[in-house]
Amino acid sequence: MKPVYIGEDAELQRGHLAAACRDLYRRGWMPGTSGNISVRSGETVVITASGRSKGAMSRKDTVMVEPFEGLPLLGETEWPSAETSIHLALYQQLPNCGAVIHAHAPHSTAVAALTGTNGSIGQVVFENMELAKGLGSVDPHLVAVPVFANWSDVSRIASDVTAYLDGSAADAPPVLLIDRHGVTAWGHNIDEARNRLECVEEMSRLTLLTGAFGAGVAKETAR
Amino acid sequence: MKPVYIGEDAELQRGHLAAACRDLYRRGWMPGTSGNISVRSGETVVITASGRSKGAMSRKDTVMVEPFEGLPLLGETEWPSAETSIHLALYQQLPNCGAVIHAHAPHSTAVAALTGTNGSIGQVVFENMELAKGLGSVDPHLVAVPVFANWSDVSRIASDVTAYLDGSAADAPPVLLIDRHGVTAWGHNIDEARNRLECVEEMSRLTLLTGAFGAGVAKETAR
Amino acid sequence: MKPVYIGEDAELQRGHLAAACRDLYRRGWMPGTSGNISVRSGETVVITASGRSKGAMSRKDTVMVEPFEGLPLLGETEWPSAETSIHLALYQQLPNCGAVIHAHAPHSTAVAALTGTNGSIGQVVFENMELAKGLGSVDPHLVAVPVFANWSDVSRIASDVTAYLDGSAADAPPVLLIDRHGVTAWGHNIDEARNRLECVEEMSRLTLLTGAFGAGVAKETAR
Amino acid sequence: MKPVYIGEDAELQRGHLAAACRDLYRRGWMPGTSGNISVRSGETVVITASGRSKGAMSRKDTVMVEPFEGLPLLGETEWPSAETSIHLALYQQLPNCGAVIHAHAPHSTAVAALTGTNGSIGQVVFENMELAKGLGSVDPHLVAVPVFANWSDVSRIASDVTAYLDGSAADAPPVLLIDRHGVTAWGHNIDEARNRLECVEEMSRLTLLTGAFGAGVAKETAR
Repeated sequence: MKPVYIGEDAELQRGHLAAACRDLYRRGWMPGTSGNISVRSGETVVITASGRSKGAMSRKDTVMVEPFEGLPLLGETEWPSAETSIHLALYQQLPNCGAVIHAHAPHSTAVAALTGTNGSIGQVVFENMELAKGLGSVDPHLVAVPVFANWSDVSRIASDVTAYLDGSAADAPPVLLIDRHGVTAWGHNIDEARNRLECVEEMSRLTLLTGAFGAGVAKETAR
Repeated sequence: MKPVYIGEDAELQRGHLAAACRDLYRRGWMPGTSGNISVRSGETVVITASGRSKGAMSRKDTVMVEPFEGLPLLGETEWPSAETSIHLALYQQLPNCGAVIHAHAPHSTAVAALTGTNGSIGQVVFENMELAKGLGSVDPHLVAVPVFANWSDVSRIASDVTAYLDGSAADAPPVLLIDRHGVTAWGHNIDEARNRLECVEEMSRLTLLTGAFGAGVAKETAR
Repeated sequence: MKPVYIGEDAELQRGHLAAACRDLYRRGWMPGTSGNISVRSGETVVITASGRSKGAMSRKDTVMVEPFEGLPLLGETEWPSAETSIHLALYQQLPNCGAVIHAHAPHSTAVAALTGTNGSIGQVVFENMELAKGLGSVDPHLVAVPVFANWSDVSRIASDVTAYLDGSAADAPPVLLIDRHGVTAWGHNIDEARNRLECVEEMSRLTLLTGAFGAGVAKETAR
Repeated sequence: MKPVYIGEDAELQRGHLAAACRDLYRRGWMPGTSGNISVRSGETVVITASGRSKGAMSRKDTVMVEPFEGLPLLGETEWPSAETSIHLALYQQLPNCGAVIHAHAPHSTAVAALTGTNGSIGQVVFENMELAKGLGSVDPHLVAVPVFANWSDVSRIASDVTAYLDGSAADAPPVLLIDRHGVTAWGHNIDEARNRLECVEEMSRLTLLTGAFGAGVAKETAR
């Protein structure tokens, strides 16, 4: 894993991370204690602590972990998010990934649930949507976003993500869905990850709004 | 009824309660003068006063009542919520319950209305939803949330709740629905109750969003 | 017309009115320059000026008019809302009406459009909804909200409202709908009118959310 | 092109533009880095810089361009929006146009996607909607909003807009849709453009809300 030196000190990172959580909570994208955000900071990763309402996040609700098993560094007093292994899988596979956001954005989650995984990895294909440009250098005419099964054992989701990226990291869009669970987006920093999250959520909303007419804009495969 | 000594003074509790009301109102979950919140405070219960818009709640819009019939304590000048008896039924049956929130969250209310009660107690079953983990120690693969009939006589709803919990309190999820009326959630404190409310509302939204495709994620029984 | 002496000075009223506009605009219920609010102030009526975005309302964007034809009083520099005649019709017929809000709340407007008027006055019947209690003393088990045709000549809508209230003012719920146009609610003051507006909007939302399943909770008649 | 001298200095314009972006972002109408706003300022145009999240816009995220090819003026350090050519086409054709807003408002975008363009220019017809009055002097009984194809080459969209306005500028409503891309509205200033944007978005929402019942209020043609 090649670390990305982002050049901000960890306390600033914790502050940005907490602010992004509060923002996404206010939108209703992190209900209950769901949702988690991480930032790669030098050789380490800062991630949301486990079991917090994201509406009241402060820097103290984050924890710095080592990037292999996600164990808290010496001096850290919080326990990291139960989904830390998925974040680490992304950092491991994607050297340029500097931040990861996982949220329960409603329309993305609904599109993932409708698509399903059919025992393997499902795929939501967004066709000819302008906002696909917001996902980076991929071809905006046809974006295939993977849908992963929501195994109870989170490390198994992480393994699926690792296997998927092993084969397709270069072409993969910087977002993935988890069935009946939510959406994960990443980028060089939190702002870029959040921009991409917004794009996939809005494309999903458009899919559902138009599908309500019986004439879907996106094709859901694997079902 | 075993009281829970929460360790905060009553004025603080009133302040928290009012702030939670204003927050839920802003989301549109307490329209008109609907919605009510209570907190167990030592041997007593603090609850929203009757007939207030929750968007302008202050500590003065709460009332401290005794926990058996919900009568205001000496010195209280407000009248408690018309639905106080449901709150008291929960505190009576659930020794660890420290706070109760009743709200008209739209998707929960719609799912309750669609399920109905068929003359008895209906049931909304959420299957394999990640957010079910937010409801505590219940099995997240299958959560059955009860739907109660909305009797004009509120004390009859309270009796139904008491009877239901008599048989199932240990396994019951910390939320219940009332037909064409709303959702009630509880926990050790207001924050936990609100987290759970958010989870059931979001699972209900997911149910409706996916059901609009004709392929519902949740099964509604009792209809 | 028996005036209601509300006991606040007109400047305060203007301030409340402007604040209520800004609040409803933020919810998306007064898009463009739509929506209008009035308050009866002694022998006069204060109403929103014509053609203002409600997101930037101040006291200066209101105008005091006489209650018979809605002409601005001496010294007023703004022109009153084009829908002033509907407000005046309500004050004329309802001696206890102290404030009127007209908004384009989306679900109410959709329910009105779906119901239509069939050349006469349509009716949306809300059955067994808890929030019907928020409409005052009417029977909450069955609330019939009228739907008026949206004549280009606003004074014709006002006449229809007058004729409707002539026959039913005592039993009429404090809300009415206008086809493809919006919802009007009233009460002793702005807060009560807004509470009622919220209730009819939420009952309409519930109707639409449940109707999407093909099993409507409300019956739409007159179509 | 006849310039409109708006009479505010360019720095004020930049500030208004940035504030309008932040406002529309908060509504969810400018997800990712989408959306752009411009203002005609004397002989020049001020427009959003390329690739910015609109939630954090400041005056520095705008750029002043000449009105023929959209090249930044001397001293400008940012690159203009990739969709500048569409803005310039509108200013060129419409001497009274002082501001243009392009947004990904969800319901407008969905209605555009459902209508499509059928290889040419599609049309969404809004019938008898009160909010059509918010689009200016057009007949509110029947408003036909054009839907343009979303060519990868943005200048081709701009050409289509120019050709459309060549034939119909006098009667055209001050809004247009782009398939699976969004809505563009204009007016004498940003506030008027935003008011009109709100109206077309709300009419689109009403169309979708009522269409969910299988009884659409608007007719979508060209499909």
